[in-house]
Amino acid sequence: MDKERPLILVVNDDGVTAPGIRTLIRLMKTLGEVMVVAPDSPQSGMGHAITLNSMLHANRVQVDEGNQVEYACSGTPVDCVKLAMNKLVPRKPDLCVSGINHGSNASINVLYSGTMAAAIEGAIEGIPSIGFSLLDYSHDADFSQCEDYVLKIAEQVLENPIPKGTCLNVNIPNVKKDALKGVRVCRQANGNWDEEFDERVNPMGKTYYWLTGKFENADEGTDTDIWALNNNYISVVPVMFDLTAHQLVQNLKAMNHG
Amino acid sequence: MDKERPLILVVNDDGVTAPGIRTLIRLMKTLGEVMVVAPDSPQSGMGHAITLNSMLHANRVQVDEGNQVEYACSGTPVDCVKLAMNKLVPRKPDLCVSGINHGSNASINVLYSGTMAAAIEGAIEGIPSIGFSLLDYSHDADFSQCEDYVLKIAEQVLENPIPKGTCLNVNIPNVKKDALKGVRVCRQANGNWDEEFDERVNPMGKTYYWLTGKFENADEGTDTDIWALNNNYISVVPVMFDLTAHQLVQNLKAMNHG
Repeated sequence: MDKERPLILVVNDDGVTAPGIRTLIRLMKTLGEVMVVAPDSPQSGMGHAITLNSMLHANRVQVDEGNQVEYACSGTPVDCVKLAMNKLVPRKPDLCVSGINHGSNASINVLYSGTMAAAIEGAIEGIPSIGFSLLDYSHDADFSQCEDYVLKIAEQVLENPIPKGTCLNVNIPNVKKDALKGVRVCRQANGNWDEEFDERVNPMGKTYYWLTGKFENADEGTDTDIWALNNNYISVVPVMFDLTAHQLVQNLKAMNHG
Repeated sequence: MDKERPLILVVNDDGVTAPGIRTLIRLMKTLGEVMVVAPDSPQSGMGHAITLNSMLHANRVQVDEGNQVEYACSGTPVDCVKLAMNKLVPRKPDLCVSGINHGSNASINVLYSGTMAAAIEGAIEGIPSIGFSLLDYSHDADFSQCEDYVLKIAEQVLENPIPKGTCLNVNIPNVKKDALKGVRVCRQANGNWDEEFDERVNPMGKTYYWLTGKFENADEGTDTDIWALNNNYISVVPVMFDLTAHQLVQNLKAMNHG
Protein backbone atom coordinates (compact mmCIF):
# COMPACT_ATOMS: atom_id res chain seq x y z
CA MET A 1 0.00 0.00 0.00
CA ASP A 2 1.06 3.56 -0.75
CA LYS A 3 2.50 5.25 2.35
CA GLU A 4 1.65 8.71 1.06
CA ARG A 5 -2.12 8.27 1.20
CA PRO A 6 -4.09 7.77 4.43
CA LEU A 7 -5.02 4.19 5.31
CA ILE A 8 -8.75 3.81 5.90
CA LEU A 9 -10.23 0.76 7.63
CA VAL A 10 -13.82 0.08 6.52
CA VAL A 11 -16.15 -2.13 8.58
CA ASN A 12 -19.90 -2.62 8.97
CA ASP A 13 -22.51 -4.88 10.54
CA ASP A 14 -24.68 -5.73 7.54
CA GLY A 15 -21.98 -7.89 5.97
CA VAL A 16 -19.26 -7.34 3.39
CA THR A 17 -21.60 -7.52 0.37
CA ALA A 18 -24.21 -5.01 1.66
CA PRO A 19 -24.82 -2.04 -0.66
CA GLY A 20 -24.10 0.38 2.21
CA ILE A 21 -20.51 -0.78 2.72
CA ARG A 22 -19.92 -1.00 -1.04
CA THR A 23 -20.89 2.69 -1.30
CA LEU A 24 -18.63 3.58 1.63
CA ILE A 25 -15.69 1.67 0.13
CA ARG A 26 -16.11 3.44 -3.21
CA LEU A 27 -16.18 6.84 -1.49
CA MET A 28 -13.22 6.13 0.80
CA LYS A 29 -11.06 5.05 -2.15
CA THR A 30 -11.13 8.68 -3.31
CA LEU A 31 -9.55 9.68 0.02
CA GLY A 32 -6.96 6.98 0.63
CA GLU A 33 -5.90 3.36 0.61
CA VAL A 34 -8.77 1.17 1.76
CA MET A 35 -8.74 -2.03 3.80
CA VAL A 36 -12.09 -3.74 4.37
CA VAL A 37 -12.63 -6.21 7.23
CA ALA A 38 -16.35 -6.89 7.45
CA PRO A 39 -18.59 -9.71 8.68
CA ASP A 40 -19.31 -12.57 6.27
CA SER A 41 -22.97 -12.55 7.40
CA PRO A 42 -25.42 -9.94 8.74
CA GLN A 43 -24.60 -8.88 12.32
CA SER A 44 -27.25 -6.26 13.01
CA GLY A 45 -28.09 -5.77 16.68
CA MET A 46 -24.86 -7.40 17.85
CA GLY A 47 -23.91 -4.37 19.93
CA HIS A 48 -20.40 -4.63 21.36
CA ALA A 49 -20.38 -8.44 21.30
CA ILE A 50 -17.05 -10.26 20.89
CA THR A 51 -16.42 -13.92 20.16
CA LEU A 52 -14.94 -15.65 23.20
CA ASN A 53 -16.10 -19.26 22.87
CA SER A 54 -15.41 -19.89 19.21
CA MET A 55 -12.64 -19.27 16.70
CA LEU A 56 -12.62 -16.73 13.89
CA HIS A 57 -11.95 -16.99 10.18
CA ALA A 58 -10.93 -14.15 7.86
CA ASN A 59 -11.09 -14.91 4.14
CA ARG A 60 -9.56 -12.68 1.47
CA VAL A 61 -12.38 -11.68 -0.88
CA GLN A 62 -12.86 -9.25 -3.77
CA VAL A 63 -16.49 -8.21 -3.96
CA ASP A 64 -16.01 -5.27 -6.33
CA GLU A 65 -13.24 -4.30 -8.70
CA GLY A 66 -10.51 -2.02 -7.44
CA ASN A 67 -7.37 -1.98 -5.35
CA GLN A 68 -9.04 -2.19 -1.93
CA VAL A 69 -7.90 -5.13 0.20
CA GLU A 70 -10.95 -7.00 1.51
CA TYR A 71 -11.54 -9.66 4.16
CA ALA A 72 -14.79 -11.39 5.11
CA CYS A 73 -14.63 -12.29 8.80
CA SER A 74 -16.74 -14.89 10.60
CA GLY A 75 -17.07 -12.75 13.74
CA THR A 76 -18.97 -9.72 15.01
CA PRO A 77 -18.29 -6.13 13.90
CA VAL A 78 -16.09 -5.60 16.98
CA ASP A 79 -14.21 -8.83 16.22
CA CYS A 80 -13.55 -7.45 12.73
CA VAL A 81 -11.88 -4.34 14.15
CA LYS A 82 -9.83 -6.30 16.67
CA LEU A 83 -8.69 -8.87 14.11
CA ALA A 84 -7.92 -6.15 11.57
CA MET A 85 -5.79 -4.22 14.05
CA ASN A 86 -3.97 -7.26 15.37
CA LYS A 87 -3.45 -9.36 12.24
CA LEU A 88 -4.44 -7.67 9.00
CA VAL A 89 -3.57 -3.96 8.72
CA PRO A 90 -0.11 -3.12 7.31
CA ARG A 91 0.10 -0.06 9.61
CA LYS A 92 -2.13 1.86 12.01
CA PRO A 93 -5.11 3.22 10.04
CA ASP A 94 -5.61 6.99 9.88
CA LEU A 95 -9.37 6.58 9.90
CA CYS A 96 -11.92 3.86 10.69
CA VAL A 97 -15.36 4.17 9.06
CA SER A 98 -18.26 1.84 9.76
CA GLY A 99 -21.41 1.44 7.66
CA ILE A 100 -23.14 2.83 5.79
CA ASN A 101 -25.70 1.05 7.93
CA HIS A 102 -29.07 0.14 6.46
CA GLY A 103 -31.22 1.73 9.19
CA SER A 104 -31.08 4.26 12.01
CA ASN A 105 -28.53 4.26 14.80
CA ALA A 106 -29.80 7.45 16.37
CA SER A 107 -30.81 7.84 20.04
CA ILE A 108 -30.74 4.60 22.08
CA ASN A 109 -30.01 2.54 18.95
CA VAL A 110 -26.34 3.42 19.42
CA LEU A 111 -26.25 0.76 22.19
CA TYR A 112 -27.62 -2.12 20.10
CA SER A 113 -25.78 -1.21 16.92
CA GLY A 114 -22.95 -3.34 15.58
CA THR A 115 -22.07 -0.48 13.22
CA MET A 116 -21.50 1.93 16.10
CA ALA A 117 -19.80 -0.71 18.26
CA ALA A 118 -17.23 -1.15 15.48
CA ALA A 119 -16.67 2.62 15.36
CA ILE A 120 -16.36 2.74 19.16
CA GLU A 121 -13.86 -0.13 19.04
CA GLY A 122 -11.89 1.84 16.43
CA ALA A 123 -11.81 4.75 18.89
CA ILE A 124 -10.67 2.41 21.69
CA GLU A 125 -7.82 1.41 19.38
CA GLY A 126 -6.90 5.10 19.10
CA ILE A 127 -8.12 5.59 15.52
CA PRO A 128 -10.36 8.54 14.54
CA SER A 129 -13.61 6.68 13.86
CA ILE A 130 -17.02 7.38 12.35
CA GLY A 131 -20.18 5.29 12.07
CA PHE A 132 -22.53 6.20 9.20
CA SER A 133 -26.19 5.13 9.03
CA LEU A 134 -28.99 5.87 6.56
CA LEU A 135 -32.56 5.82 7.87
CA ASP A 136 -33.68 3.14 5.43
CA TYR A 137 -33.64 -0.50 6.54
CA SER A 138 -34.18 -1.96 3.05
CA HIS A 139 -31.44 -3.84 1.23
CA ASP A 140 -31.85 -1.65 -1.85
CA ALA A 141 -31.72 1.65 0.06
CA ASP A 142 -30.61 4.62 -2.05
CA PHE A 143 -27.30 5.89 -0.67
CA SER A 144 -26.66 8.35 -3.50
CA GLN A 145 -28.18 11.41 -1.83
CA CYS A 146 -25.71 11.37 1.06
CA GLU A 147 -22.45 10.65 -0.74
CA ASP A 148 -21.18 14.23 -0.72
CA TYR A 149 -21.84 14.56 3.01
CA VAL A 150 -20.22 11.24 3.88
CA LEU A 151 -17.11 12.24 1.95
CA LYS A 152 -17.02 15.70 3.53
CA ILE A 153 -17.38 14.42 7.09
CA ALA A 154 -14.66 11.80 6.53
CA GLU A 155 -12.37 14.47 5.08
CA GLN A 156 -13.03 16.75 8.05
CA VAL A 157 -12.09 13.99 10.50
CA LEU A 158 -8.94 13.12 8.52
CA GLU A 159 -7.92 16.78 8.67
CA ASN A 160 -8.97 17.43 12.28
CA PRO A 161 -8.98 14.14 14.19
CA ILE A 162 -11.62 14.04 16.91
CA PRO A 163 -10.34 13.85 20.50
CA LYS A 164 -9.19 10.50 21.93
CA GLY A 165 -11.90 8.55 23.67
CA THR A 166 -14.61 9.65 21.24
CA CYS A 167 -16.00 8.84 17.81
CA LEU A 168 -18.83 10.17 15.66
CA ASN A 169 -22.32 8.71 15.20
CA VAL A 170 -23.59 10.09 11.88
CA ASN A 171 -27.21 9.42 10.85
CA ILE A 172 -28.68 10.48 7.53
CA PRO A 173 -32.39 11.11 6.90
CA ASN A 174 -33.94 9.08 4.10
CA VAL A 175 -34.82 11.99 1.83
CA LYS A 176 -33.80 13.13 -1.63
CA LYS A 177 -30.61 15.18 -1.94
CA ASP A 178 -32.53 18.41 -2.54
CA ALA A 179 -34.45 17.98 0.71
CA LEU A 180 -31.30 17.47 2.83
CA LYS A 181 -30.81 20.69 4.77
CA GLY A 182 -27.27 20.13 6.06
CA VAL A 183 -25.46 18.87 9.14
CA ARG A 184 -26.18 19.35 12.85
CA VAL A 185 -23.84 18.35 15.68
CA CYS A 186 -26.15 17.24 18.46
CA ARG A 187 -26.72 15.01 21.46
CA GLN A 188 -28.26 11.52 21.70
CA ALA A 189 -32.02 11.89 22.15
CA ASN A 190 -33.63 10.29 25.18
CA GLY A 191 -35.77 7.56 23.64
CA ASN A 192 -36.25 3.83 23.74
CA TRP A 193 -37.97 0.89 22.11
CA ASP A 194 -41.47 -0.04 23.11
CA GLU A 195 -41.05 -3.76 22.61
CA GLU A 196 -43.76 -6.12 21.63
CA PHE A 197 -42.91 -9.81 21.46
CA ASP A 198 -44.87 -11.61 18.77
CA GLU A 199 -45.86 -14.89 20.46
CA ARG A 200 -46.29 -17.98 18.26
CA VAL A 201 -46.56 -21.73 18.66
CA ASN A 202 -44.26 -24.04 16.70
CA PRO A 203 -45.42 -27.27 15.00
CA MET A 204 -44.43 -29.20 18.14
CA GLY A 205 -46.74 -27.06 20.30
CA LYS A 206 -44.00 -25.03 21.95
CA THR A 207 -44.28 -21.25 22.41
CA TYR A 208 -41.66 -18.99 20.87
CA TYR A 209 -41.21 -15.24 20.46
CA TRP A 210 -40.07 -12.74 17.86
CA LEU A 211 -38.76 -9.38 19.07
CA THR A 212 -40.68 -6.50 17.48
CA GLY A 213 -41.55 -3.01 18.63
CA LYS A 214 -41.39 0.62 17.78
CA PHE A 215 -39.03 3.41 18.74
CA GLU A 216 -40.46 6.05 21.07
CA ASN A 217 -38.81 9.46 21.31
CA ALA A 218 -39.20 10.87 24.84
CA ASP A 219 -37.13 13.98 24.21
CA GLU A 220 -38.58 17.35 23.17
CA GLY A 221 -35.16 19.00 22.81
CA THR A 222 -34.26 20.68 19.53
CA ASP A 223 -30.59 19.83 20.08
CA THR A 224 -31.02 16.06 19.63
CA ASP A 225 -30.25 13.65 16.81
CA ILE A 226 -33.92 12.73 16.49
CA TRP A 227 -34.90 16.39 16.08
CA ALA A 228 -32.20 16.92 13.45
CA LEU A 229 -33.27 13.85 11.49
CA ASN A 230 -36.97 14.75 11.69
CA ASN A 231 -36.03 18.14 10.27
CA ASN A 232 -34.02 16.71 7.36
CA TYR A 233 -30.59 17.40 8.84
CA ILE A 234 -27.79 14.85 9.03
CA SER A 235 -27.10 14.30 12.75
CA VAL A 236 -23.56 14.05 14.13
CA VAL A 237 -23.31 12.92 17.76
CA PRO A 238 -19.89 12.71 19.41
CA VAL A 239 -19.92 9.40 21.32
CA MET A 240 -17.69 8.37 24.20
CA PHE A 241 -16.93 4.99 25.73
CA ASP A 242 -16.36 6.23 29.27
CA LEU A 243 -19.81 5.29 30.58
CA THR A 244 -19.25 6.83 34.02
CA ALA A 245 -22.08 9.11 35.14
CA HIS A 246 -19.48 11.53 36.52
CA GLN A 247 -21.93 13.91 38.16
CA LEU A 248 -23.28 10.98 40.18
CA VAL A 249 -19.93 9.81 41.56
CA GLN A 250 -19.98 12.63 44.11
CA ASN A 251 -23.69 12.19 44.94
CA LEU A 252 -23.25 8.51 45.73
CA LYS A 253 -20.35 8.98 48.15
CA ALA A 254 -22.70 7.99 50.97
CA MET A 255 -22.24 4.44 49.71
CA ASN A 256 -18.52 4.60 50.49
CA HIS A 257 -17.66 2.27 53.31
CA GLY A 258 -14.45 1.29 55.04
CA MET B 1 -46.45 -13.23 44.13
CA ASP B 2 -46.77 -11.22 47.34
CA LYS B 3 -47.49 -7.56 46.57
CA GLU B 4 -46.05 -6.43 49.88
CA ARG B 5 -42.49 -7.44 49.10
CA PRO B 6 -40.38 -5.85 46.36
CA LEU B 7 -40.17 -7.74 43.07
CA ILE B 8 -36.55 -8.40 42.05
CA LEU B 9 -35.62 -9.45 38.51
CA VAL B 10 -32.41 -11.48 38.44
CA VAL B 11 -30.42 -11.93 35.20
CA ASN B 12 -26.85 -12.80 34.21
CA ASP B 13 -24.67 -13.71 31.24
CA ASP B 14 -23.03 -16.91 32.49
CA GLY B 15 -26.28 -18.86 32.22
CA VAL B 16 -29.05 -19.79 34.65
CA THR B 17 -27.12 -22.61 36.34
CA ALA B 18 -23.91 -20.62 37.04
CA PRO B 19 -22.90 -20.50 40.72
CA GLY B 20 -22.78 -16.68 40.58
CA ILE B 21 -26.46 -16.28 39.75
CA ARG B 22 -27.45 -19.02 42.19
CA THR B 23 -25.72 -17.02 44.95
CA LEU B 24 -27.44 -13.83 43.83
CA ILE B 25 -30.87 -15.50 43.75
CA ARG B 26 -30.39 -16.87 47.27
CA LEU B 27 -29.42 -13.42 48.56
CA MET B 28 -32.23 -11.57 46.78
CA LYS B 29 -34.83 -13.95 48.19
CA THR B 30 -34.10 -12.45 51.61
CA LEU B 31 -35.08 -9.01 50.21
CA GLY B 32 -38.14 -9.76 48.10
CA GLU B 33 -39.96 -11.90 45.56
CA VAL B 34 -37.53 -13.13 42.93
CA MET B 35 -38.08 -13.72 39.23
CA VAL B 36 -35.13 -15.16 37.29
CA VAL B 37 -34.86 -14.81 33.49
CA ALA B 38 -31.38 -15.91 32.50
CA PRO B 39 -29.71 -17.34 29.39
CA ASP B 40 -29.89 -21.11 28.87
CA SER B 41 -26.22 -21.09 27.78
CA PRO B 42 -23.13 -18.96 28.52
CA GLN B 43 -23.36 -15.49 26.93
CA SER B 44 -20.13 -13.85 28.10
CA GLY B 45 -18.84 -11.07 25.89
CA MET B 46 -22.22 -10.57 24.22
CA GLY B 47 -22.29 -6.87 25.11
CA HIS B 48 -25.60 -5.22 24.29
CA ALA B 49 -26.47 -7.75 21.55
CA ILE B 50 -30.14 -8.49 20.84
CA THR B 51 -31.62 -11.27 18.73
CA LEU B 52 -33.15 -9.87 15.53
CA ASN B 53 -32.83 -12.71 13.03
CA SER B 54 -34.02 -15.62 15.12
CA MET B 55 -36.81 -16.44 17.55
CA LEU B 56 -36.54 -16.82 21.31
CA HIS B 57 -37.61 -19.54 23.71
CA ALA B 58 -38.21 -19.14 27.44
CA ASN B 59 -38.57 -22.37 29.42
CA ARG B 60 -39.83 -22.53 32.98
CA VAL B 61 -37.09 -24.20 35.08
CA GLN B 62 -36.40 -24.83 38.73
CA VAL B 63 -32.67 -25.08 39.28
CA ASP B 64 -32.72 -24.79 43.09
CA GLU B 65 -35.41 -25.28 45.66
CA GLY B 66 -37.44 -22.28 46.71
CA ASN B 67 -40.28 -20.03 45.62
CA GLN B 68 -38.37 -18.05 42.97
CA VAL B 69 -39.91 -18.18 39.50
CA GLU B 70 -37.23 -19.10 36.96
CA TYR B 71 -36.99 -19.05 33.18
CA ALA B 72 -34.12 -20.19 30.97
CA CYS B 73 -34.10 -18.06 27.81
CA SER B 74 -32.45 -18.91 24.49
CA GLY B 75 -31.36 -15.32 23.89
CA THR B 76 -28.73 -12.85 25.03
CA PRO B 77 -28.71 -11.15 28.46
CA VAL B 78 -30.43 -8.08 26.98
CA ASP B 79 -33.04 -10.33 25.31
CA CYS B 80 -33.71 -11.81 28.77
CA VAL B 81 -34.51 -8.39 30.23
CA LYS B 82 -36.70 -7.38 27.27
CA LEU B 83 -38.61 -10.67 27.26
CA ALA B 84 -39.01 -10.58 31.03
CA MET B 85 -40.42 -7.06 30.96
CA ASN B 86 -42.73 -7.69 28.02
CA LYS B 87 -43.99 -11.21 28.67
CA LEU B 88 -42.96 -12.68 32.01
CA VAL B 89 -43.03 -10.27 34.97
CA PRO B 90 -46.34 -9.98 36.88
CA ARG B 91 -45.65 -6.28 37.54
CA LYS B 92 -42.82 -3.78 37.10
CA PRO B 93 -39.82 -4.96 39.14
CA ASP B 94 -38.53 -2.74 41.93
CA LEU B 95 -34.95 -3.83 41.27
CA CYS B 96 -33.01 -5.57 38.53
CA VAL B 97 -29.76 -7.30 39.52
CA SER B 98 -27.38 -8.96 37.08
CA GLY B 99 -24.62 -11.44 37.92
CA ILE B 100 -22.82 -12.27 40.01
CA ASN B 101 -20.51 -12.44 37.02
CA HIS B 102 -17.59 -14.84 37.04
CA GLY B 103 -14.89 -12.30 36.14
CA SER B 104 -14.18 -8.57 36.08
CA ASN B 105 -16.39 -6.00 34.41
CA ALA B 106 -14.30 -3.05 35.55
CA SER B 107 -12.89 -0.36 33.24
CA ILE B 108 -13.46 -0.96 29.49
CA ASN B 109 -14.93 -4.42 30.19
CA VAL B 110 -18.25 -2.69 30.87
CA LEU B 111 -18.66 -2.40 27.07
CA TYR B 112 -18.17 -6.09 26.26
CA SER B 113 -20.06 -7.40 29.27
CA GLY B 114 -23.41 -9.14 28.90
CA THR B 115 -23.86 -8.79 32.66
CA MET B 116 -23.60 -5.02 32.52
CA ALA B 117 -25.63 -4.79 29.28
CA ALA B 118 -28.49 -6.53 31.11
CA ALA B 119 -28.22 -4.04 33.98
CA ILE B 120 -28.12 -1.13 31.51
CA GLU B 121 -31.19 -2.55 29.76
CA GLY B 122 -32.92 -2.71 33.15
CA ALA B 123 -32.13 0.98 33.60
CA ILE B 124 -33.46 1.75 30.10
CA GLU B 125 -36.69 0.04 31.22
CA GLY B 126 -36.78 2.44 34.17
CA ILE B 127 -35.84 -0.11 36.85
CA PRO B 128 -33.11 0.62 39.44
CA SER B 129 -30.44 -1.81 38.25
CA ILE B 130 -27.12 -3.19 39.45
CA GLY B 131 -24.54 -5.45 37.83
CA PHE B 132 -22.34 -7.47 40.21
CA SER B 133 -19.04 -9.09 39.20
CA LEU B 134 -16.40 -11.03 41.14
CA LEU B 135 -12.82 -10.89 39.88
CA ASP B 136 -12.57 -14.66 39.48
CA TYR B 137 -13.30 -16.21 36.08
CA SER B 138 -13.44 -19.80 37.35
CA HIS B 139 -16.69 -21.75 37.49
CA ASP B 140 -16.11 -22.67 41.13
CA ALA B 141 -15.31 -19.11 42.24
CA ASP B 142 -15.94 -18.46 45.93
CA PHE B 143 -18.75 -15.89 46.24
CA SER B 144 -19.11 -16.21 50.03
CA GLN B 145 -16.79 -13.34 50.96
CA CYS B 146 -18.91 -10.73 49.21
CA GLU B 147 -22.42 -11.78 50.22
CA ASP B 148 -22.86 -9.15 52.94
CA TYR B 149 -21.78 -6.38 50.58
CA VAL B 150 -23.99 -7.55 47.71
CA LEU B 151 -26.98 -7.60 50.05
CA LYS B 152 -26.17 -4.21 51.50
CA ILE B 153 -25.74 -2.52 48.10
CA ALA B 154 -29.01 -4.04 46.84
CA GLU B 155 -30.79 -2.84 50.00
CA GLN B 156 -29.36 0.66 49.56
CA VAL B 157 -30.64 0.85 45.99
CA LEU B 158 -34.08 -0.47 47.00
CA GLU B 159 -34.25 2.26 49.66
CA ASN B 160 -32.74 5.06 47.58
CA PRO B 161 -33.25 4.31 43.89
CA ILE B 162 -30.45 5.63 41.71
CA PRO B 163 -31.39 8.39 39.24
CA LYS B 164 -33.11 7.49 35.96
CA GLY B 165 -30.74 6.91 33.10
CA THR B 166 -28.10 5.27 35.28
CA CYS B 167 -27.26 1.94 36.89
CA LEU B 168 -24.42 0.62 39.05
CA ASN B 169 -21.41 -1.43 37.97
CA VAL B 170 -20.19 -3.23 41.11
CA ASN B 171 -16.94 -5.19 40.98
CA ILE B 172 -15.59 -7.24 43.86
CA PRO B 173 -11.92 -8.11 44.40
CA ASN B 174 -11.14 -11.80 44.67
CA VAL B 175 -9.88 -11.77 48.25
CA LYS B 176 -10.94 -13.31 51.53
CA LYS B 177 -13.60 -11.51 53.51
CA ASP B 178 -11.10 -10.28 56.10
CA ALA B 179 -9.03 -8.61 53.40
CA LEU B 180 -11.98 -6.69 51.89
CA LYS B 181 -11.56 -3.08 52.96
CA GLY B 182 -14.99 -1.74 52.01
CA VAL B 183 -16.72 0.09 49.16
CA ARG B 184 -15.54 2.93 46.92
CA VAL B 185 -17.77 4.86 44.51
CA CYS B 186 -15.50 5.65 41.58
CA ARG B 187 -15.13 6.24 37.85
CA GLN B 188 -14.39 3.81 35.03
CA ALA B 189 -10.62 3.55 34.63
CA ASN B 190 -9.12 4.36 31.24
CA GLY B 191 -7.78 1.01 30.09
CA ASN B 192 -8.13 -1.45 27.27
CA TRP B 193 -7.27 -4.93 26.08
CA ASP B 194 -3.98 -5.59 24.38
CA GLU B 195 -5.26 -8.29 22.07
CA GLU B 196 -3.25 -11.14 20.76
CA PHE B 197 -4.91 -13.46 18.27
CA ASP B 198 -3.65 -17.02 18.60
CA GLU B 199 -3.25 -18.13 14.96
CA ARG B 200 -3.73 -21.82 14.18
CA VAL B 201 -4.24 -24.05 11.15
CA ASN B 202 -7.16 -26.48 11.03
CA PRO B 203 -6.89 -30.07 9.72
CA MET B 204 -7.98 -28.83 6.28
CA GLY B 205 -5.08 -26.37 6.14
CA LYS B 206 -7.15 -23.23 6.77
CA THR B 207 -5.98 -20.52 9.17
CA TYR B 208 -8.18 -19.60 12.13
CA TYR B 209 -7.84 -17.35 15.16
CA TRP B 210 -8.65 -17.36 18.87
CA LEU B 211 -9.05 -14.01 20.60
CA THR B 212 -6.71 -13.72 23.59
CA GLY B 213 -5.00 -10.78 25.26
CA LYS B 214 -4.42 -9.01 28.49
CA PHE B 215 -6.00 -5.98 30.10
CA GLU B 216 -3.81 -2.88 30.30
CA ASN B 217 -4.65 -0.13 32.77
CA ALA B 218 -3.61 3.27 31.34
CA ASP B 219 -4.99 5.28 34.25
CA GLU B 220 -2.96 6.42 37.26
CA GLY B 221 -5.95 7.97 39.04
CA THR B 222 -6.77 6.89 42.58
CA ASP B 223 -10.48 7.53 41.94
CA THR B 224 -10.92 4.65 39.46
CA ASP B 225 -12.48 1.20 39.70
CA ILE B 226 -9.13 -0.43 38.90
CA TRP B 227 -7.43 1.45 41.75
CA ALA B 228 -10.20 0.47 44.18
CA LEU B 229 -10.01 -3.20 43.18
CA ASN B 230 -6.20 -3.27 43.33
CA ASN B 231 -6.51 -1.89 46.86
CA ASN B 232 -9.06 -4.50 47.99
CA TYR B 233 -12.10 -2.22 47.82
CA ILE B 234 -15.35 -3.12 46.10
CA SER B 235 -15.77 -0.63 43.24
CA VAL B 236 -19.13 1.00 42.48
CA VAL B 237 -19.27 2.94 39.19
CA PRO B 238 -22.48 4.77 38.24
CA VAL B 239 -22.98 3.99 34.54
CA MET B 240 -25.11 5.89 32.05
CA PHE B 241 -26.44 4.99 28.62
CA ASP B 242 -26.37 8.49 27.18
CA LEU B 243 -23.10 8.06 25.27
CA THR B 244 -22.97 11.70 24.10
CA ALA B 245 -19.62 13.37 24.71
CA HIS B 246 -21.48 16.51 25.78
CA GLN B 247 -18.42 18.72 26.16
CA LEU B 248 -17.56 17.99 22.53
CA VAL B 249 -20.93 18.96 21.06
CA GLN B 250 -20.00 22.63 21.37
CA ASN B 251 -16.44 22.15 20.13
CA LEU B 252 -17.59 20.42 16.95
CA LYS B 253 -20.08 23.12 15.94
CA ALA B 254 -17.74 24.00 13.07
CA MET B 255 -19.10 20.86 11.40
CA ASN B 256 -22.60 22.37 11.34
CA HIS B 257 -23.68 23.10 7.80
CA GLY B 258 -26.84 24.41 6.24
